Amino acid sequence: MRFHYKIIILDELNYHKKGWLSLKGLKLTVIGGGSSYTPELIEGILSHQEVLNVSEIWLVDVEAGKEKLAIIEGLTKRMVKKTGCSIKTFTTIDRRKAIKDAGYIISQIRVGQLAMRRHDEYISIKHGVVGQETTGAGGFMKALRTIPVLLDICRDIEELAPGAWLLNFTNPAGIITEAILKYSNVKVVGLCNNPINFYKKFAETYNVSIDDVSINFTGINHLIWITGLYIKGKSRIEDIFTGRSDSYEAKNIPAFGWDLEFLKSLGAIPCGYHKYYYQTDQILSEQLKQFEQNETRADKVQSLENELFDIYRDPEQEEKPKALEQRGGAYYSEAAINLIRSIHLNTKNVHTLNVRNNGTITCLPDDVSIEVNCVVESHQITPLQVGEVSPQIRGLLQNVKAYEELTVDAAVYGDKGLAHQALTLHPLVPSAERAKKILDEMLLINKDFLPQFN
Amino acid sequence: MRFHYKIIILDELNYHKKGWLSLKGLKLTVIGGGSSYTPELIEGILSHQEVLNVSEIWLVDVEAGKEKLAIIEGLTKRMVKKTGCSIKTFTTIDRRKAIKDAGYIISQIRVGQLAMRRHDEYISIKHGVVGQETTGAGGFMKALRTIPVLLDICRDIEELAPGAWLLNFTNPAGIITEAILKYSNVKVVGLCNNPINFYKKFAETYNVSIDDVSINFTGINHLIWITGLYIKGKSRIEDIFTGRSDSYEAKNIPAFGWDLEFLKSLGAIPCGYHKYYYQTDQILSEQLKQFEQNETRADKVQSLENELFDIYRDPEQEEKPKALEQRGGAYYSEAAINLIRSIHLNTKNVHTLNVRNNGTITCLPDDVSIEVNCVVESHQITPLQVGEVSPQIRGLLQNVKAYEELTVDAAVYGDKGLAHQALTLHPLVPSAERAKKILDEMLLINKDFLPQFN
Amino acid sequence: MRFHYKIIILDELNYHKKGWLSLKGLKLTVIGGGSSYTPELIEGILSHQEVLNVSEIWLVDVEAGKEKLAIIEGLTKRMVKKTGCSIKTFTTIDRRKAIKDAGYIISQIRVGQLAMRRHDEYISIKHGVVGQETTGAGGFMKALRTIPVLLDICRDIEELAPGAWLLNFTNPAGIITEAILKYSNVKVVGLCNNPINFYKKFAETYNVSIDDVSINFTGINHLIWITGLYIKGKSRIEDIFTGRSDSYEAKNIPAFGWDLEFLKSLGAIPCGYHKYYYQTDQILSEQLKQFEQNETRADKVQSLENELFDIYRDPEQEEKPKALEQRGGAYYSEAAINLIRSIHLNTKNVHTLNVRNNGTITCLPDDVSIEVNCVVESHQITPLQVGEVSPQIRGLLQNVKAYEELTVDAAVYGDKGLAHQALTLHPLVPSAERAKKILDEMLLINKDFLPQFN
Amino acid sequence: MRFHYKIIILDELNYHKKGWLSLKGLKLTVIGGGSSYTPELIEGILSHQEVLNVSEIWLVDVEAGKEKLAIIEGLTKRMVKKTGCSIKTFTTIDRRKAIKDAGYIISQIRVGQLAMRRHDEYISIKHGVVGQETTGAGGFMKALRTIPVLLDICRDIEELAPGAWLLNFTNPAGIITEAILKYSNVKVVGLCNNPINFYKKFAETYNVSIDDVSINFTGINHLIWITGLYIKGKSRIEDIFTGRSDSYEAKNIPAFGWDLEFLKSLGAIPCGYHKYYYQTDQILSEQLKQFEQNETRADKVQSLENELFDIYRDPEQEEKPKALEQRGGAYYSEAAINLIRSIHLNTKNVHTLNVRNNGTITCLPDDVSIEVNCVVESHQITPLQVGEVSPQIRGLLQNVKAYEELTVDAAVYGDKGLAHQALTLHPLVPSAERAKKILDEMLLINKDFLPQFN
Repeated sequence: MRFHYKIIILDELNYHKKGWLSLKGLKLTVIGGGSSYTPELIEGILSHQEVLNVSEIWLVDVEAGKEKLAIIEGLTKRMVKKTGCSIKTFTTIDRRKAIKDAGYIISQIRVGQLAMRRHDEYISIKHGVVGQETTGAGGFMKALRTIPVLLDICRDIEELAPGAWLLNFTNPAGIITEAILKYSNVKVVGLCNNPINFYKKFAETYNVSIDDVSINFTGINHLIWITGLYIKGKSRIEDIFTGRSDSYEAKNIPAFGWDLEFLKSLGAIPCGYHKYYYQTDQILSEQLKQFEQNETRADKVQSLENELFDIYRDPEQEEKPKALEQRGGAYYSEAAINLIRSIHLNTKNVHTLNVRNNGTITCLPDDVSIEVNCVVESHQITPLQVGEVSPQIRGLLQNVKAYEELTVDAAVYGDKGLAHQALTLHPLVPSAERAKKILDEMLLINKDFLPQFN
Repeated sequence: MRFHYKIIILDELNYHKKGWLSLKGLKLTVIGGGSSYTPELIEGILSHQEVLNVSEIWLVDVEAGKEKLAIIEGLTKRMVKKTGCSIKTFTTIDRRKAIKDAGYIISQIRVGQLAMRRHDEYISIKHGVVGQETTGAGGFMKALRTIPVLLDICRDIEELAPGAWLLNFTNPAGIITEAILKYSNVKVVGLCNNPINFYKKFAETYNVSIDDVSINFTGINHLIWITGLYIKGKSRIEDIFTGRSDSYEAKNIPAFGWDLEFLKSLGAIPCGYHKYYYQTDQILSEQLKQFEQNETRADKVQSLENELFDIYRDPEQEEKPKALEQRGGAYYSEAAINLIRSIHLNTKNVHTLNVRNNGTITCLPDDVSIEVNCVVESHQITPLQVGEVSPQIRGLLQNVKAYEELTVDAAVYGDKGLAHQALTLHPLVPSAERAKKILDEMLLINKDFLPQFN
Repeated sequence: MRFHYKIIILDELNYHKKGWLSLKGLKLTVIGGGSSYTPELIEGILSHQEVLNVSEIWLVDVEAGKEKLAIIEGLTKRMVKKTGCSIKTFTTIDRRKAIKDAGYIISQIRVGQLAMRRHDEYISIKHGVVGQETTGAGGFMKALRTIPVLLDICRDIEELAPGAWLLNFTNPAGIITEAILKYSNVKVVGLCNNPINFYKKFAETYNVSIDDVSINFTGINHLIWITGLYIKGKSRIEDIFTGRSDSYEAKNIPAFGWDLEFLKSLGAIPCGYHKYYYQTDQILSEQLKQFEQNETRADKVQSLENELFDIYRDPEQEEKPKALEQRGGAYYSEAAINLIRSIHLNTKNVHTLNVRNNGTITCLPDDVSIEVNCVVESHQITPLQVGEVSPQIRGLLQNVKAYEELTVDAAVYGDKGLAHQALTLHPLVPSAERAKKILDEMLLINKDFLPQFN
Repeated sequence: MRFHYKIIILDELNYHKKGWLSLKGLKLTVIGGGSSYTPELIEGILSHQEVLNVSEIWLVDVEAGKEKLAIIEGLTKRMVKKTGCSIKTFTTIDRRKAIKDAGYIISQIRVGQLAMRRHDEYISIKHGVVGQETTGAGGFMKALRTIPVLLDICRDIEELAPGAWLLNFTNPAGIITEAILKYSNVKVVGLCNNPINFYKKFAETYNVSIDDVSINFTGINHLIWITGLYIKGKSRIEDIFTGRSDSYEAKNIPAFGWDLEFLKSLGAIPCGYHKYYYQTDQILSEQLKQFEQNETRADKVQSLENELFDIYRDPEQEEKPKALEQRGGAYYSEAAINLIRSIHLNTKNVHTLNVRNNGTITCLPDDVSIEVNCVVESHQITPLQVGEVSPQIRGLLQNVKAYEELTVDAAVYGDKGLAHQALTLHPLVPSAERAKKILDEMLLINKDFLPQFN
């Protein structure tokens, strides 16, 4: 991942002169535009406008999100105005209008809003399993609600903007991206802020530029392992395993809360979401407390959202508020803008993305989504070969991937049996019996969002 | 699997006349000969002596099992005498003497005896995970104790009986067989009574001869799924899924205690050991009760063993006692004898065995053990191609296999880190934290049996 | 491959008593019934009638073959009558009538008759490449003519006899079988007399029963290598490589005309058709002579056919004439009848057959046909795992298989470009230029038989 | 492949300031330094010295090449002097001295000089097969001579410069690189000017910067296919198939001498070396003429070499002479320098290189060399995933690769049998008989260069 801003801008001016890409017509559409994340994205676009030359931003949302969308629209217009650039912004609940002729479409929807997320977490914890937005029973239920909606959106894109790139941020991003790869013809790529956070963290640790950090990632969304870490071309992963470095640059080597011996025998650095799998007992015990106090993550996010929209509403507010940073999703905007720039300018540089496996991780099926380093060109995104992975990683990776495959098919076909099989396979669900109870309860409470199951 | 007894005997007499195999010198060695199972095996040999023409049976055990070995020796000699055949029986604690020039070596050892099994179960349950002899933390610990001993035995076989077939019954049979396949040159095949029990059960259900039953097995030892069931060439697996048959032969279609809807979406029939994975909650709750009453399976088996040896000791006892049937291991002897006969007579027929994968189940590595249908010849045992498996099966299968691969290497290299990784991966162990606690406690109590870890 | 005739007959009587299969209604259909081979097949059926209990034989042919069909019908009826059994024979040019409700359908057609085969050979040799019925440019052209016809037949089978097994002898048998596997739902298996000839040959060489011979085959039709040879369970392949044996049984070890050093470094025994690939110069030089004298194999076969039909016509002729043996196809009938018996009686024994690869030979795609050892059951035919093959074998095998895949698609889609690519890839065609010339000439002369290209 | 010269220089200056790499000590060693190509390489280094900051160039050659080495040394020193930079140049026949502590080692040796190449060509053509330096029987023989020498060099590198990157230009570059990958621990990458020539050609055709050209390459050295061609992110491969473009930029669409219909059904653009496979008849006929006139390519190259060294000798000559361009190897120096720069500056950009397959092209073994797009970092070179290839490409690719694998092993083990198998497999050698004759003659005349076969 390279961020030679200054240099690339020269480079890009050069492109402009050559008239490579018809930049004047760039229409960028955000599905789920009423999200509290949108100002972050807008800020990113505005600060790269010299390069991207966006002409139109379309924010689209559903009827139920109309009010929030209006608030975001106001803030967006104020932000654009403040920078003095000429981007036109549109908001609509007519998805087809927003999609038509778009060059880039960003998906960041939340079907059922935070209310359903709250149910996902509460039902999970109630049955003694981890309650989480993107993994376990919670992520599973979110996928069932979301996949049909995203595939409908893809039907529109196929018809109205067949050349557009769809950047999918909608969680669980790996599963959603896989559903789109399998069941549509849209040019999709899945995106997460997990990888960029690692780059930032290591750059900081070693006090180097982000260009000096190389990371080999293996895995799938929210379940990636770092199998190689290089600072200025020198391997540094042992620093993490030992918690110390012989290098003067690195002050504090972060083990990210992991037991060092465990890391060493793992031979890799897990991502943050691995704690659900490796430290399940501790997580469950914390979640149980939150559950009893009606204070799970969903509850916290809900309050935060309310506060944010209060700020957004303020007609004096002309920029992204600081408070947004607590919402999570650090560098989310940066990851998105970097990717759009690389696609747009055909920079052929490396990003960590969710794409079709196609033999890259040899122990996974060809047609599933994986999250690995990729070379980005305007016309294609190609993963770098990973090859074989160690059994330590392989066992968990293959299990969760099989769960994801079943979840995609359960969601697409509305197949309750496959849904049961998927949930039974998930490592965070201890048995078929438990899976059945959770599934039944979730299907009932989500029934308005699951036409395919009725 | 074919059992045309009468016919094959004619067939075999024919072989004898042609002098195919030098049957007169057949030496059969049983390692772990002092086991309570031995009389079952002896009975099997005696009843097939016309075909097998065994000249010597060697029962070998360790110093600690000397007393039991002497009791078994007495019973064996009485059993042989009663049939009036000329087999010579030998008992020894000199393993090398017993192995030298053997044609078939049967391994059925239990390192650490029932006392250590009891610890395996109690420590597991104490930490809230399933306590079981062959799977989960219990099976894992048994593997760590057993693999080094089996590999030592293999060193002797390589030197003293390089042409011998090793029939491994020692549990966890899949893991042990894999260790031997990876770390020795011995011609090994792993064997379990699970498959033959299915054949017997379905033959009974459909009131047909066992020859009329065809089963497609996919999986690994103690984790096999039936993906195809044919009675007289007609598919009958739907009978199991629906619990009924339109066929007059089948009276009661057994669902083996499974929820029919679950079976249907699984698209396969699980084996008995799957209950630990699919019905974990129920199993755990039962085991917890047993734990509190000091009455786990290990305790029951210990009492049964004591009773059995009391019977074996009786100088009037000249045959396998009925009580042995409660010990488990039904048809264990039949499976062993059938296999020896097929190898010995080069019958080229089909048995369900543990062999090197070699691409048979395409989603597993080449060098691991699998349990599938195989064609048995004197010189080779070749698996029938399985190909791809459904994600329902694949996710669990790959996860448990990765656990097994790590367990083999942890045992061979005495690597505590790999042991921790293995146990963490096991679906019955919920977290790395829990795995660590169980591992530490188990390593401590087993330290006399784990020289490789010290 | 097991041929315990006496024993199996007892065995089968046993099946009859149990009423396993409703044998009384067995209808056997021969497509291409007017072939000169038919009497061989009839003889085979008649001599196994006690086991097979065939009730009807249907011989079907095309309008152009009507006269030959009538002659065969006469002979068949005389042969049946002579044995005194009750089989009814029918001849027809109404294919659908013959297919309806058949249990087994044997395909042995020759689209374009011997006249087109003659063109195949002559055009090939004229352009300086091997002219052969089943491989090279000749086999390629035969495939283009034949595949559409066979797929039409399969459409009828799908409709009129969906449970029937199709035994395909039609050459090039591997390519034709692959086309059917890929483009129909018929239960097909491809069959060749090549493997059975090896069994017979080795049984004779070692003076043993055919049951005592085990052969590991790897490859595709007319391009199989023997990678393991065992007599009574003992490896004997080195005998072939050295041309001598230390065993008293083997008198003359046949190297089948191969250079011994070449065999040794090949590490395998090639089949007869390998001479086209390994001894191309010699073959070409011989064929050139035949070409100049108007005496290629097609010419010889034509004369032989004429002579055979003269004999068949004779109303005194009541059995298969000796002269048929010179026609080639030794043991062709035996291979067919053995296979039908195994399917019919669900014997679960091993035959060497053309089936879907499905991962059996790991270096070939899943969906292609291969020729390997298989276990035959009534409901399925399952290949035995082969795994990896040596590069010596792999390079040629993969190249010819890719040619076959392209040939299948060229034939199905009538795609001249793919046809050119296929022929260019064939190892016996030296260049794209030459392939073009041969293809153009062949398409022109075959145009009546290639509606899909017009 | 990116060549933002101006920009990257800024970028690199930045690196320098950060003190990333200790550039002051860069020692660059050229094995086969006495080659007529060396001045090209020197020119390249000198023109990038600002970035590379080379301190020492070591030219090493063998005793027999001493005179040529001295001439090259003289010219090199004059060239360096003319630029006024401070690089020190050394020449030696002590290979170990030259290798010690080198950062980059370039291998461009020719074992047996042009004299043996002449034999390679003449013996091939004499036996009626293509006579070529890098493919067919000629390339095969060159590999047998060269591999042992390169592996000896690698032994020295392992000992004396274990951190060095070895850039292998020595032909046949794919086979040599594979031998090193399989039989040494050296960090090797194989390099050819074929890919860069395509980039240059298409940039010229479409009148765009080389950055605007994206090419998807699939294959192995001297047998690569272009399966995707994009100009400014737009697919243009159809232009090549049709010979015309709707784009104003492209004036003359080069079909590179191929039949357009053939290209279209191939679905890819072959490289120049494909003419040996696809246009064999024409090539052979031309070579036969050259053979009869004693004027094969080897003869021409020999005269050219003589002329070049006459020029090099001239003390007035202070730069690379124009005449060198006729020698072939266009952009050879540019490819090498670009790669060194990318490694050295950790630029993470894309080059087309020969590396270990590792699952990248799924139809080839893991441990072979392939030539594909790779991301270059200081510490690793990672191929971009290719996945499956069409049968048109696959058949030839797999066949030639199997030939290469056997050639590597024949060369390493001095195994005449494997050598015969390798040559028999090669598509340009029609039979095992012909292979034998060529091999025998070649081994005889090369015996001084093949200690491993004696």
